[in-house]
Amino acid sequence: MGNKHGSLENMERERLIPSSLEQTYGVHEDDGEVKACGCFCLGSIRKKFKGLWSNLRAVVVNSWEVARSDPRKVVFSAKLGLALALISFLIFWKEPLPDISEHSVWAILTVVVVFEFSIGATFSKGLNRGLGTLSAGGLALAMAEFAHFCERFGAAWDEAIIIISIFTVGSLATFAKLYPTLKAYEYGFRVFTLTYCYIMASGYRTNEFMGTAVDRFLLIALGAGVGLLVNVGIYPIWAGEDLHNLVVKNFFNVANSLEGIINQYLDCVEYKRIPSKILNYQAYDDRLYTGYRSAVESTSQEDTLMGFAIWEPPHGRYKMYKYPWRNFVKVSGALRHCSFMVMALHGCILSEIQAPADRRRVFQDELQRVSTAGAKVLRELGNKVKKMEKLGSLNILDEVLKAAEDLQTKVDRKSYLLVDANSWEIGKPPIEFQDIQDISKTDDNDPFKYHGYHSFSEARLDLGTSRSPETTNLPFAGTNGFHKSLTREFSFKPERMVIQDEGDTYKSASVLSLVTFTSLLIEFVARLGNLVVAFEELSETAKFKAPPAEGRVEEEEVCGFWGRFWRFVKPRDRNDNLLA
Amino acid sequence: MGNKHGSLENMERERLIPSSLEQTYGVHEDDGEVKACGCFCLGSIRKKFKGLWSNLRAVVVNSWEVARSDPRKVVFSAKLGLALALISFLIFWKEPLPDISEHSVWAILTVVVVFEFSIGATFSKGLNRGLGTLSAGGLALAMAEFAHFCERFGAAWDEAIIIISIFTVGSLATFAKLYPTLKAYEYGFRVFTLTYCYIMASGYRTNEFMGTAVDRFLLIALGAGVGLLVNVGIYPIWAGEDLHNLVVKNFFNVANSLEGIINQYLDCVEYKRIPSKILNYQAYDDRLYTGYRSAVESTSQEDTLMGFAIWEPPHGRYKMYKYPWRNFVKVSGALRHCSFMVMALHGCILSEIQAPADRRRVFQDELQRVSTAGAKVLRELGNKVKKMEKLGSLNILDEVLKAAEDLQTKVDRKSYLLVDANSWEIGKPPIEFQDIQDISKTDDNDPFKYHGYHSFSEARLDLGTSRSPETTNLPFAGTNGFHKSLTREFSFKPERMVIQDEGDTYKSASVLSLVTFTSLLIEFVARLGNLVVAFEELSETAKFKAPPAEGRVEEEEVCGFWGRFWRFVKPRDRNDNLLA
Repeated sequence: MGNKHGSLENMERERLIPSSLEQTYGVHEDDGEVKACGCFCLGSIRKKFKGLWSNLRAVVVNSWEVARSDPRKVVFSAKLGLALALISFLIFWKEPLPDISEHSVWAILTVVVVFEFSIGATFSKGLNRGLGTLSAGGLALAMAEFAHFCERFGAAWDEAIIIISIFTVGSLATFAKLYPTLKAYEYGFRVFTLTYCYIMASGYRTNEFMGTAVDRFLLIALGAGVGLLVNVGIYPIWAGEDLHNLVVKNFFNVANSLEGIINQYLDCVEYKRIPSKILNYQAYDDRLYTGYRSAVESTSQEDTLMGFAIWEPPHGRYKMYKYPWRNFVKVSGALRHCSFMVMALHGCILSEIQAPADRRRVFQDELQRVSTAGAKVLRELGNKVKKMEKLGSLNILDEVLKAAEDLQTKVDRKSYLLVDANSWEIGKPPIEFQDIQDISKTDDNDPFKYHGYHSFSEARLDLGTSRSPETTNLPFAGTNGFHKSLTREFSFKPERMVIQDEGDTYKSASVLSLVTFTSLLIEFVARLGNLVVAFEELSETAKFKAPPAEGRVEEEEVCGFWGRFWRFVKPRDRNDNLLA
Repeated sequence: MGNKHGSLENMERERLIPSSLEQTYGVHEDDGEVKACGCFCLGSIRKKFKGLWSNLRAVVVNSWEVARSDPRKVVFSAKLGLALALISFLIFWKEPLPDISEHSVWAILTVVVVFEFSIGATFSKGLNRGLGTLSAGGLALAMAEFAHFCERFGAAWDEAIIIISIFTVGSLATFAKLYPTLKAYEYGFRVFTLTYCYIMASGYRTNEFMGTAVDRFLLIALGAGVGLLVNVGIYPIWAGEDLHNLVVKNFFNVANSLEGIINQYLDCVEYKRIPSKILNYQAYDDRLYTGYRSAVESTSQEDTLMGFAIWEPPHGRYKMYKYPWRNFVKVSGALRHCSFMVMALHGCILSEIQAPADRRRVFQDELQRVSTAGAKVLRELGNKVKKMEKLGSLNILDEVLKAAEDLQTKVDRKSYLLVDANSWEIGKPPIEFQDIQDISKTDDNDPFKYHGYHSFSEARLDLGTSRSPETTNLPFAGTNGFHKSLTREFSFKPERMVIQDEGDTYKSASVLSLVTFTSLLIEFVARLGNLVVAFEELSETAKFKAPPAEGRVEEEEVCGFWGRFWRFVKPRDRNDNLLA
């Protein structure tokens, strides 16, 4: 197994890891080096063994990591092994029904095929397999009878009928499989085709159509029964619970992203070089980026999990027939709608046009308040979803709406700071107005007081030096002249405008970009309302419990000695930032 | 079959159509009504037959639609039927090797299992199956020998060894299947487990381990051979081509979305009621929305297609060993990065805070130019990807950069129109400046000249009436007071501010929202640069052909009589908006 692992892993590396990564992670192909002194000299053999050994060690270490990060995988593997071992006792069956041993292989195969990670997937596949086998068996028996009947007209007739029927059934079932709305039953159609062909082929040879079909079906039922019993009976893994956890995780991820982005924006931290993976929307390990990306990207995973969850019987905390899993996905969709705004906010950090630091500081308090309140709402909703509690009478949006309102008012009152009056075509405004633009930096509420005034020209100079124009992550930057990004087009193209104008245009754009940032943040807050609506709908349909009354010690479901013990030793504030 | 279809379709409806839709589309469950007069009266039977008949008719009509929209599905189904029919001749095989007929079923099963829609998937599955079978066969034979060897120590030893080995192999292979980097080989591990158990079970009974393994492998090879031959030989369907087309389609979709959004913005068309599906980011049939959504949502489809495409041999226009499919996905990722900006632009239309129409008109020409030029760049790049041509010496971004620059300059020169000076804390600006804010509507370049001035208060009144605050798609709007969206919080909460202030805040926000729109559009243009870089990289690595020299009639690959005929009759301008 170890060797197999290794070879497969190498193939994997060759195929799936892009060359850039190989350099980063040191996946070199030194082992393939062929030396002139001969392939099989002792040194090279030793080297190969060493390589094999280190590969093996890496596999063991990685497996340990995988097992530790999700122990359910180990449990599931052991469960499958157990089910297989149980059912393979059939091989040694002797009396009273010797046929059982002969067809035991079907029961074993069924266990392998039906045993899926989550209970929902197991049920769904099991039902598909059962239906496919039953209907194909029925059809095959009927066709076999018909072929036998036709045999009297000539020897070749039954063969022709069997082949034609196989062609027809195969084609129709395959077309049905490709039919868009029947995609969920793809596996069923595959099993249908398989079973039909199998019964036709093996039945024709032994002329025991009926026996083949019935034996097979009984043993498949036995295999499915043992598989289900083991899978559901021992540490069941529920797709619904996975979906629930995924939605909760998304809430906390987006909240973290939001806070991080606003903090980074206010600290004026820029990317020295924007990772090309972000520019191409590929997976990349950046705290701000992964937060909202995971929420945006989880669509297909959610759909898959929901597809399985609806097959699962009521269980655990989901004690309701027809549990509204769809509403979980809906809440997650509403959250995604919010996280697109977080993504757009991140876009402001990625952009080449950056608002000057002093203007950002003017709105620092308000931006910070909206960010904190917004993230708090997300975390609170996430916790509510997690604990399956209703919202209660308190208005969860109160604080964030107030903060957004204050931000909007401040923007409104200070919007003269967000425009650059220098190049107005209506002529420059009176001199007092210009001065105010600079003086305003020393707002009394501003914690970052300047100790002296910059003159207007100095301020522009600052702006020029603080923005390093070396965000060059464009691999083909040298080949053609036009790959420079827009800003640099503006800034470094002497043939278009005179330098003075370019600086002004850039300055105006950079000042206005603060407006964009605040507008996007306010739009984010507006979208929170829709998220709350989706949550309320979920909490109604899924019959979430009422929140504990204020002031009362929160009652939790405590069961058994260990539960009481945990209640005794647990830290007080375990609900805050549990998943942060 | 018809009945099966029908019943499956009903299940589909029950499970997959949300109850709200059922009401809309008239999927009623009238048929289930049980009347007091008895279940089996003639009327109800007739009704049932009628229902069955209409169901059947719907299935046929829909199937015809599916077949017409993608005829490859029909071809593929027929191909599978043909391969099955060919291989099932083995059933009737008599001499010289009677064993063939006995094991023929394996060849048939292999055809069903390996035959996948695209060639890449077929190769990938075939290899997985081959490797899985071979390695499991080898291991099973070795273990069987070992079990036989141990039999001499006691009768139960071999049974114990077989069961323990099945448990171990099953568990380990399952764990490997769940190992994140080995996900692509999941099917291989499943086949490995299956084969191992099968050989152990059937070999133990007949004591013909070797025979079972070799026979099975030969027939599987035969089945795989016939399957591959038919699948590749007759009208092959390439995953690579699908990926290529998908990427091209995304370009045109995003371009359409962009143009549509800018037009709608300039025409001041608002959603009367924003569809809740858009708010929850679910699929919804809206021209602007589907355009960028399809580009954003195609990530997983692209990954799947790429996973298959890398298995495909050089073919058709992709005549290169190790074709850089990864770069197609990268280009699509860069396009996605752009389309997030288009999505944010759409967000401005969805937002409650809307810029006043007169201000939009001031920037109408510039916005329109950027939109047209941007969409043109996207379409041109899409066409280049489609025709696999390099960019050539012309700067594709020239026009859109110029347009964006002009827009930026105009914003710069007219930024006094983008702020509302009424509530500045530094006191109102001199009266001339205020007047200018209104007068500026009558810009000479503005095609929408006003015939009279509104006084300031009238303008505000207009604003209040033109914005209908009835965008109420909030189902729980009545239950709690705080589900109103942000704007309405601002506008209709008398306890927070005096009405005058609220109107001003809203007005200021609405005027500033135009800044957001233009900034986002300019950021979109900036991101186009990155897209061009990704395209250039693709065109280099995939060795796209040089573009035809200007003025020369475009040469196309014309092959055979029908090609020349088509060239003769085809419409001239077939590349424009081909996929639009």
